[in-house]
Amino acid sequence: MFQDQQVNAPLIGVPGGRHLLDTPALLIDLPAMTRNIERMAAFAKARGVSLRPHVKTHKSVEIARRQVAAGAIGVSCVTMGEAEVMVQGGIPGVLITSPAVTPSKISRLIRLAQRARPGDVMVVVDNPQNLADLARAAGELTHPLDVLVDYGAGYNRTGCATQAKVLELAALVAAEPRLRLRGLQSYAGNLQHIVAREERSAAAAALRETVAGIVAAARRQGLNFDIVTGAGTGTHDLDSQENAFTELQAGSYVFMDAEYSRVLANGDQPSPFETSLFVQTAVVSTNAADWVTVDGGTKCFSTDSGVPVVAKGADAASHYAFFGDEHGKLMPSPASQAPKPALGARVEFVTPHCDPTVNLHDAYHVVEGGTLVAIWPVDARGRR
Amino acid sequence: MFQDQQVNAPLIGVPGGRHLLDTPALLIDLPAMTRNIERMAAFAKARGVSLRPHVKTHKSVEIARRQVAAGAIGVSCVTMGEAEVMVQGGIPGVLITSPAVTPSKISRLIRLAQRARPGDVMVVVDNPQNLADLARAAGELTHPLDVLVDYGAGYNRTGCATQAKVLELAALVAAEPRLRLRGLQSYAGNLQHIVAREERSAAAAALRETVAGIVAAARRQGLNFDIVTGAGTGTHDLDSQENAFTELQAGSYVFMDAEYSRVLANGDQPSPFETSLFVQTAVVSTNAADWVTVDGGTKCFSTDSGVPVVAKGADAASHYAFFGDEHGKLMPSPASQAPKPALGARVEFVTPHCDPTVNLHDAYHVVEGGTLVAIWPVDARGRR
Repeated sequence: MFQDQQVNAPLIGVPGGRHLLDTPALLIDLPAMTRNIERMAAFAKARGVSLRPHVKTHKSVEIARRQVAAGAIGVSCVTMGEAEVMVQGGIPGVLITSPAVTPSKISRLIRLAQRARPGDVMVVVDNPQNLADLARAAGELTHPLDVLVDYGAGYNRTGCATQAKVLELAALVAAEPRLRLRGLQSYAGNLQHIVAREERSAAAAALRETVAGIVAAARRQGLNFDIVTGAGTGTHDLDSQENAFTELQAGSYVFMDAEYSRVLANGDQPSPFETSLFVQTAVVSTNAADWVTVDGGTKCFSTDSGVPVVAKGADAASHYAFFGDEHGKLMPSPASQAPKPALGARVEFVTPHCDPTVNLHDAYHVVEGGTLVAIWPVDARGRR
Repeated sequence: MFQDQQVNAPLIGVPGGRHLLDTPALLIDLPAMTRNIERMAAFAKARGVSLRPHVKTHKSVEIARRQVAAGAIGVSCVTMGEAEVMVQGGIPGVLITSPAVTPSKISRLIRLAQRARPGDVMVVVDNPQNLADLARAAGELTHPLDVLVDYGAGYNRTGCATQAKVLELAALVAAEPRLRLRGLQSYAGNLQHIVAREERSAAAAALRETVAGIVAAARRQGLNFDIVTGAGTGTHDLDSQENAFTELQAGSYVFMDAEYSRVLANGDQPSPFETSLFVQTAVVSTNAADWVTVDGGTKCFSTDSGVPVVAKGADAASHYAFFGDEHGKLMPSPASQAPKPALGARVEFVTPHCDPTVNLHDAYHVVEGGTLVAIWPVDARGRR
């Protein structure tokens, strides 16, 4: 059993257990997460698109199960290790959203595809040499390997650079008897965090037009693009318009972090999803005049997108600053009349960026109000 | 067995195995790390100070054992989890460098101190209330609990704010029969990364004078300050002068990252320690005109201190940029005539900041030249 579970497991069901946790502890507000899962499922259903949520956000079989139970057709994974964990956990419809290139990754892919039911493991491809390598390796399978062609929308992080390249590669896949062409991936990471709604909307509309053009051209050539997958939490409402995409890969909506809450607020309307992920810290030093020190630093919160935001246990106007590997500096607002948090007091934060923050923790502490109701492992933490 | 070991273990001893690793993979250049360990041990011996290296850098029992074998008197740990792992691994002289405050942490501390030999677990304190809590809990021990008073040098992250507070707290410790006063901690994190040597030197000299003053005053009062602990890799050569400190807590010297290599270079002279820690990635997409995409991103490299620096496999003038959770953008210098790295090619990087980068990985891949010679777990990864 991993350490976080050993230390905090005796608190499950104990009244007020949330306030006795060994810190720092990653928390899920279960009712809030459940509402997020249900809301996105209902939204997708109403729009007539499928949902294949990205598990790089949570890396948890338990949460994937709940997403599938609410209507998701499967999950998206960026690493082979995430896909292995999900297949092992019995999750169907696993799409690997990044190419499997090295001999080691291809070998793991083939073993995984053989272990899963046909069609339950799919991978994207963006390169003819990689396609040939996959086709050769797929010779070991008792069924064809399912492949989607990746289009380099937005960042051009992975994916074919042009429509012509997409069609060329799709034709090569279709011609390989050991591969089965399933569709197109077009994920525009660059659009997800544009806070200005008009700008995000215009950019997403332009991408939908491009994607629709590619899909129409492929279908004219008789290529099977049944699946058109993409979209994140920041564009889920835009990418589900006009039937350009058949499914959404949004992931962060289950938790919502400080960044996405800003993106999805729309004028006076707050985000349709609630923050359900928090980190609880404790105050470990109180000797400075202008701050207290809490026990969460750069090994507890990701540092790529700003700083944690106080949610509970301290004045909301307090500011956090990173203060080394295991510490944070919590500075009350100079205007505040409230006393500083006391030694040992618990302070909870909204995470600056949920995905890489979750990856720093071994376990979720699942709470309902003041009660710890379960501890779930972050199953695919660190899995490549 | 953890996943990284499963995947790469068959490559141990295989010629050229370093170039066949499942990626991304954290690498240790064993001869370079061994030289660093020996050099710091010889340096401390020559200066007549002890060495209690900080294991927050490596979180590895195997590396701690090698440091102790080379002459270290023990290890420093910032979290209780690190200390538990080290005691479990048989490492002596474990100093916990941050206060243990919550009931959970105090309870773990007491269990750990009872399990270790007397004197092999020590903790710092900076607050009278915490001292009282420790003294009460130490009533369960069959030997007194070893305590150092923490002085808030530099950052004032933890520690007493003034000499008067240090002496007051030390007197309280000395008066508690269940506690044993061992000395003073004064760690100045703010000095470690000052690149300008003159400036770092002047600031360290001022701190040494303050520390010497505190220690002299304590000794005049008959307080036992046998241990005076502090110093990091950035100030090890400064803090070992004039007998202000009895021991050094430096940690990063075993690996050296991009940041510390800049700090320790002295005019024409390179750093006395070599980079021994690398991350190997593979190229997974090559469709963009101006970059290739490698499979290491924000879940592979810490983002708090700049970007990874190319060490091997690509033109040294290439630049890395973070490109999402699992990807990096590797941009060749526009002036370079060399071809871009090919699909599947391995590119190795120096880490921007070693401590939080190590904490993202489950295992070290230990190499000598092109051969993988061992895989070591990052034992205390994620342990709080």
